[in-house]
Parts: sequence; structure tokens; C-alpha cells
Amino acid sequence: MTTHKNRAYNLSVSVDCVVFGFDGKELNILLIERSIEENDGQYNDKKLPGSLIYMDEDINEAAHRVLFELTGLKNIPLSQFHSFGDPQRTSNIRDLHWLEKTVHAKVERIVTVAYVALIKINRKIKLNSNDTSANWFNVKNVCNENLAFDHKFIIERGLEYIKHWLKVEKHLIFKLLPRKFTLSQLRLLYDAINQEHSDVRNFRKKILQDQNIVCLDEFEEGVPHRAARLYKYVQKT
Amino acid sequence: MTTHKNRAYNLSVSVDCVVFGFDGKELNILLIERSIEENDGQYNDKKLPGSLIYMDEDINEAAHRVLFELTGLKNIPLSQFHSFGDPQRTSNIRDLHWLEKTVHAKVERIVTVAYVALIKINRKIKLNSNDTSANWFNVKNVCNENLAFDHKFIIERGLEYIKHWLKVEKHLIFKLLPRKFTLSQLRLLYDAINQEHSDVRNFRKKILQDQNIVCLDEFEEGVPHRAARLYKYVQKT
Repeated sequence: MTTHKNRAYNLSVSVDCVVFGFDGKELNILLIERSIEENDGQYNDKKLPGSLIYMDEDINEAAHRVLFELTGLKNIPLSQFHSFGDPQRTSNIRDLHWLEKTVHAKVERIVTVAYVALIKINRKIKLNSNDTSANWFNVKNVCNENLAFDHKFIIERGLEYIKHWLKVEKHLIFKLLPRKFTLSQLRLLYDAINQEHSDVRNFRKKILQDQNIVCLDEFEEGVPHRAARLYKYVQKT
Repeated sequence: MTTHKNRAYNLSVSVDCVVFGFDGKELNILLIERSIEENDGQYNDKKLPGSLIYMDEDINEAAHRVLFELTGLKNIPLSQFHSFGDPQRTSNIRDLHWLEKTVHAKVERIVTVAYVALIKINRKIKLNSNDTSANWFNVKNVCNENLAFDHKFIIERGLEYIKHWLKVEKHLIFKLLPRKFTLSQLRLLYDAINQEHSDVRNFRKKILQDQNIVCLDEFEEGVPHRAARLYKYVQKT
């Protein structure tokens, strides 16, 4: 183990919000577009909505404040899922300079407490687009994006966390569907979270073994194709 | 929301280790006995093994280092479970003075990243009792103890976290039993974690529905009472 001399008395703590949005077909992630003026031109990348906490502020409150300030979103059910504290996470000088310019202070090291949310993108969800450069981006393309700090890694960990909900916190998943849904709608949601394309028959077989998914005597209405049967989620166990 | 003026650039980050130990009958928690000299005498209480991280240290490494330094325990499987960042957690002046004396520096506010472990207390587990005042304490009595900072709350949250393992991370629980175990041994472990006294028949009925628990054609040997049947855990799903 290396020898350490200085205890960290002057580091910073930030919050970062990993907000996933399901639009009925794909899984999206909420990112802020960042533009940095550099000597040799402009550098553009993206980052998670996040910022340093205030001295007298609870970290959970900070997460809600920062998300609102940067995206306009309020009352989002944020769950704290992991803290990231590798000293190397601020090793990119560009990130550090940008942060010091933004907060008008010297910043050495930041431990970030990350929060995750999974929401339905519908007309209730409005990004405050006048004040912010926040936008939804398809999760599939995130691996090809330039992302600030260790935000790519944080998003991957956040995605693992919500995948786990498919097994143990199913009620959180079913909030993203209409109260009565078709198996196709459910499959699109599962596939979006698992980032896979599942076989229709296998999915049907697997899902109908779940006692919490109840088959209804009702069908879709007003659809151009053959009306599909509706199901609902009932938490039995 | 209150108005905040100062971003927190000079706070401290600590790690705290919530180590639960099962001795075959009861659930114990590893605590450090703390003694503070005060003007009107000596004040004694207990605290979790924890300390500030170093400036160049990863938080996960810090948790292992601090646990080793304060208790002598090495290679403990610590899982990060939650970060506690209520500004009021350092509101007790006694805690703050003690900490400043210990680390020889001014400390204002601490966000702590908490880790949990569940281990078997056996002859392999030795506390380094010469250098430390670390000891095992029955979890049942923790509610009556004087505990530093918000450590009582952190222990409660840690206990909730391992209760969840009984449902979703069962392999972690079965590591605490012999490879072949009796239903009584299993019930004592479940009851210790759930902090309840379950009915023998109901427990048996519930547990035998679990397809991962396999009934063996073997019995205990060399016991003074009637030899009980042995079971083993096989992860099927």
C-alpha cells in the first residue's frame, strides 16, 4: 500500500444524476451539452447533470436542486446508488479547468455521490430548454460520445443498477407502462433496459411465468393492426 | 428551499465500516470503544471503525485501510452501501472536537461513505486487541448504547441492507454456514439478521419452498441430541 501523508480536508463533494427516460421504444439518458473555449478552438462534449454541493446542504437535497437548476426537472424520484471516489476521476485537466472556471474556486479532488432515476418521457416531462442545454440521448450511442470526467463509467453502473430492478424492484419498472399494457409494450421496455433484442416467443413464455403479471379479458382499441391482449401488473409477493 | 451562499470546497470525506459478525447464534457489530477526557471527567462511548480518507486515496481502498488500522482485520469483503451527507451529522460538538484532536486539523463538515460486511466470527477472525479497543457487540443492544455521530442510524441502514440479501443475494448469506447445515442453524442465521424469533414449523415450511436449498440423505454426527438432517445450498437461478 502506498504511503499517504495528507488526509483530505479540502476536497469537494458533488452529486451527479443519472436520469434514464423511456419514450415507449428506447432508453434515453439526460445529458448536458458542454462547450469549452480553448486556445486552439472550441471543445464540445457532454456530461451528466451534476455539481458541487453547498456547505450547509444535505446531499439528497443537493441532487434535487442540481437536477432542477440544470434541466428544469422537478420531483424526479432520485435514488442514491453509488459514490465514486477514485482520485483519478479528475485527472483530465480540461475537466478541472472547466469546473474551476464554473465555480470560481480552486478544486483539487472531487468525490461524487451518484443518483439514478428511471422516468417516462411524456408530455408531463418538460426540459427547461431556455436556460439549459440539457437533452435526451439514446443510451445505445453513449459509448461513442465524448463524456466528461468518469461519467461514462457512472452511466454504465447506473444502467446495471436499474437492470437489477427488473429482478427485485419490479413495481418501479411497471410505472413506466400504461396501467394496462400489451406484451409488446412490456418487451420493448425490458429490451430497452437490458439493451438487447429478445425473441418474442421466449419473452412471452418467460414473462407469463411471473405471477404478478395478470392476463386480462380486454384488448387494445382503435389500433390499425390486430388488437393485442392487455395485461396488468399486480404486486402479489 | 434555503438560500445557500458557499459551495463546499473544504469539507472532508470519511469511510465508515459496518461489519456484522455471526457467531452461530447471534448477530454482532464491530465497534471501537472511545474515551474522551472532558473538563468534568471522562466520557465513554462507541463508534464504527471509520476515519477520513487521504488526499490521494481511492475511497474503497480507504475503507480497507481504515478497517485494518483500527481493528486488525484484513481481506474483509466490504460493500459500499450508502453515503451519509446530512450537515447535521457532525452537529455534536463533542464528536467534532474529538475528531479535530485525532487528526490535528480543523474539520467542518464530513460526508461519510459507508461500507457493510457480514462475516463469520470463528478462529480465523482475530481482532488485533493490543493496538485497538475494537470489539464485538450484540446488535440487539446497540439501541441502548451511546454511539458517536449518526452511527446508530448508519448501523440501522446497514442492517436493512443485509436483510435485503436474504431475498436477493442469498449466496452471501449461506457463506456464513457450514457447507452442510441443519435447518436449526439456518433458522438461527435468518433470525439473527431479521432480528426476530421465527416459529420453527413456519420457517421450515417457508424455507423448503426454496429450490436452492437441497435436502441431503445425511445427518449430523456426534451430537448428544437426535441427529438432525443436513441440507446444502445450490445456486440454481
